[in-house]
Amino acid sequence: MAKGASISGFPEWLPSERVVEQHVIDTLRRVFELNGFIGIETRAVEQGSSLLKKGETSKEIYLLSRLQEVGHESDTPIEDRLGLHFDLTVPLSRYVVEHSGDLAFPFKRWQMQKVWRGERPQEGRFREFVQADIDVVGNGELPEHYEVELPLVMVSALEELRHYGLPKATVHANNRKLSEGFYRGLGLDDIEGVLREIDKLDKIGADEVAKLLVEQCGANQEQAQACLALASLTAHDGSELAEKFEALSKQYGVDNNPEAYELARQGLATLSMIVDEAAKIRPGSVIADLKIARGLDYYTGSVYETFLEGAASLGSICSGGRYDNLASQGNKRYPGVGLSIGLSRLVSYMLHSAGAHASRVSPAAVLVAVWDEEDRADSNAIANALRARGIAADVAPTAAKLGKQIKYADKLGIPYVWFPAQSVEGDDNSASDEVKNIITGDQNAADVKSWEPDTLYARQSVNFEA
Amino acid sequence: MAKGASISGFPEWLPSERVVEQHVIDTLRRVFELNGFIGIETRAVEQGSSLLKKGETSKEIYLLSRLQEVGHESDTPIEDRLGLHFDLTVPLSRYVVEHSGDLAFPFKRWQMQKVWRGERPQEGRFREFVQADIDVVGNGELPEHYEVELPLVMVSALEELRHYGLPKATVHANNRKLSEGFYRGLGLDDIEGVLREIDKLDKIGADEVAKLLVEQCGANQEQAQACLALASLTAHDGSELAEKFEALSKQYGVDNNPEAYELARQGLATLSMIVDEAAKIRPGSVIADLKIARGLDYYTGSVYETFLEGAASLGSICSGGRYDNLASQGNKRYPGVGLSIGLSRLVSYMLHSAGAHASRVSPAAVLVAVWDEEDRADSNAIANALRARGIAADVAPTAAKLGKQIKYADKLGIPYVWFPAQSVEGDDNSASDEVKNIITGDQNAADVKSWEPDTLYARQSVNFEA
Repeated sequence: MAKGASISGFPEWLPSERVVEQHVIDTLRRVFELNGFIGIETRAVEQGSSLLKKGETSKEIYLLSRLQEVGHESDTPIEDRLGLHFDLTVPLSRYVVEHSGDLAFPFKRWQMQKVWRGERPQEGRFREFVQADIDVVGNGELPEHYEVELPLVMVSALEELRHYGLPKATVHANNRKLSEGFYRGLGLDDIEGVLREIDKLDKIGADEVAKLLVEQCGANQEQAQACLALASLTAHDGSELAEKFEALSKQYGVDNNPEAYELARQGLATLSMIVDEAAKIRPGSVIADLKIARGLDYYTGSVYETFLEGAASLGSICSGGRYDNLASQGNKRYPGVGLSIGLSRLVSYMLHSAGAHASRVSPAAVLVAVWDEEDRADSNAIANALRARGIAADVAPTAAKLGKQIKYADKLGIPYVWFPAQSVEGDDNSASDEVKNIITGDQNAADVKSWEPDTLYARQSVNFEA
Repeated sequence: MAKGASISGFPEWLPSERVVEQHVIDTLRRVFELNGFIGIETRAVEQGSSLLKKGETSKEIYLLSRLQEVGHESDTPIEDRLGLHFDLTVPLSRYVVEHSGDLAFPFKRWQMQKVWRGERPQEGRFREFVQADIDVVGNGELPEHYEVELPLVMVSALEELRHYGLPKATVHANNRKLSEGFYRGLGLDDIEGVLREIDKLDKIGADEVAKLLVEQCGANQEQAQACLALASLTAHDGSELAEKFEALSKQYGVDNNPEAYELARQGLATLSMIVDEAAKIRPGSVIADLKIARGLDYYTGSVYETFLEGAASLGSICSGGRYDNLASQGNKRYPGVGLSIGLSRLVSYMLHSAGAHASRVSPAAVLVAVWDEEDRADSNAIANALRARGIAADVAPTAAKLGKQIKYADKLGIPYVWFPAQSVEGDDNSASDEVKNIITGDQNAADVKSWEPDTLYARQSVNFEA
């Protein structure tokens, strides 16, 4: 991150770091579009009433006021004020309802934008960051197969980022119906409460969670232990999952409550389908992990979190789930499935822990030298000829000593310096143009109409230390 | 623009419109990078003190407050609050000063981001829009040749947009030193005032401007007429410009004030250089137009506005200039030259007046049909094989009747529908896969390992009605 960034929580990349972020964005977009997702961008603001409605982040919004309103902001109720969006899901649900007549359903969209969270500055968390989301939204209904396809698209996108040093990513999936059915089967009613406490497992450990389940959610010791036992269940395929689940259900008598048991088995069937189908396409990419709870209360089925190998402390880098009731209008319901990457955190990890770095700061492959300010037009003509053939080129800022021009190229990481032919006084022939690769030291005659940079140096790229 | 967008001034594109915006952004980026500009992104917020310092838009900023601060926003002075940036120039100057040690100068950067202006909602102007900027910033000094190169980069970028229906763009250039020298030579002192009134010429006409020059800037009738005469001067090359300027200077006795006359001639020399050099590379792309004033007071040399042929009412779509004193730190000065495209307005014009439209909504070239939900895995495998070869593919949402699946492709503009081979009962051989182009009606056998879409249908593109 850029040194001395003066507003805490608002990260800003140096040019070389931005190259990495730009490559990540380009790569994700390419994968999303290969999979038929449609790119949209929503406005950065929503009505306060929309922002306050949903989920856990409602306490962390930024409200706007025009300069003229300063001093009497409170004349307007918060619901009627504008605020910056804190995620891309609330804007999506509003966009879908607003433009439903113009969209084809199911609507598969990708979206990468900044979001803002009005957190306390001292917490050291990002208050401005980029999210990269894919969602599919149905009109009325949405087939279950999307619950396995969407995490797989994210896995294939994250797989592409391994070229820049990202470790292997694994999606951990659970299902709200499974959890809710199991808890109800135990005799617990405060489902949201139990999920909220289970969500703290990684942070505070099983003992503390058990205590909270008893204190906050009305569980007895055995119920609390049952919840923890369910949360410790993981499985790599549907039959392992079913076997372990049925054993637990029997052990804690969940199957004595037919209605609850049936709900849990619905969730079990979906989750089994997900891990089995995913295993066919990308073995090991999606596992069942029944401690995944997700804080947001709008999920109604599958929930996902994604972890990187060897980066447990980073937590989930890509989360989401199925929400049947996020958007609605009158009788119409728009169920969806979606996942969201916290892109800024991911890029930060890639830069600082995975060793990702840009091959060069400048997009230019060539710096054309200038012998004399009077000859600048010649150098510009060479640069323009290269650009017309798709080769990014820069021209030396001044006709300084050659060493200084080469140093400028070096500082920007531009691999080639082009020396225009100099007419030799008293000689009808001028020398030929030459190109020097300042990394390898090779220097050769070159024709502006046909010269090509070596593949290795043709484009800005992102590499990493293995 | 999306119908029913419920917050006035915050435009939001429908998916098909967003395709056009995305193509414009991609095209501009490609041209900027071909010319060696480095992409950066700055945070969306700046300190109130920075936002209030500069230029004409300081009255139009949005300030932020966290939800917890509501009701006591005024405890914090505006200077210490955070606000959304209203352009990309103020953030650039802050970025350059903050990270000067990490940048190579001259620093050539491109930046495309949203900016926000807290205007009154009823004015029907954009309050959130995208700007596309290029600037070059020097450390201490900055060669004059950038004053011709930067507008030419913008011209070549806008030239590329003609493929999407944009009319020809012409940069109108002036020079602050020329204007200031001329006004001072006339005996006028309120240079900023005169520029501000001259800037209104297109809006209110010469008579009203003359009146204001007299009433507001202390001009007499002859001085006002001289200012208007200068503002009506245009020229296509340096010698025409010099001739007309010298004639005016003589006529109004500007050359009687040697100091002022010398300042004006400095500006004249730069402006002549710009139109002559530009004419060599792109004849007719840059003209001298001495009514160009630019409201912002930080310009110190060249100023530019850009107009589209046949779109006078749109006004300038790309403006900028040279600023010698925008950024400084202690003794250090960072002079710059830059231009900014109002991208959202440009895209709006392209969509609604130039007839630009997306060839299709979905990036997918192919929709793979699904005969039966049990066969979905086969259809997914086909789509994945196509994607692996770089062909964007979608899969039918449900195994509905074929007509319904084709209708879904049609609604998204996906040109090809892929029919997986169906094994015929009692027959060892299965029929071959087939692909139908639903636009032309052509249907042929196809092999997923080698099939390619026709070039015309391979990628989403932007076209226009001529």
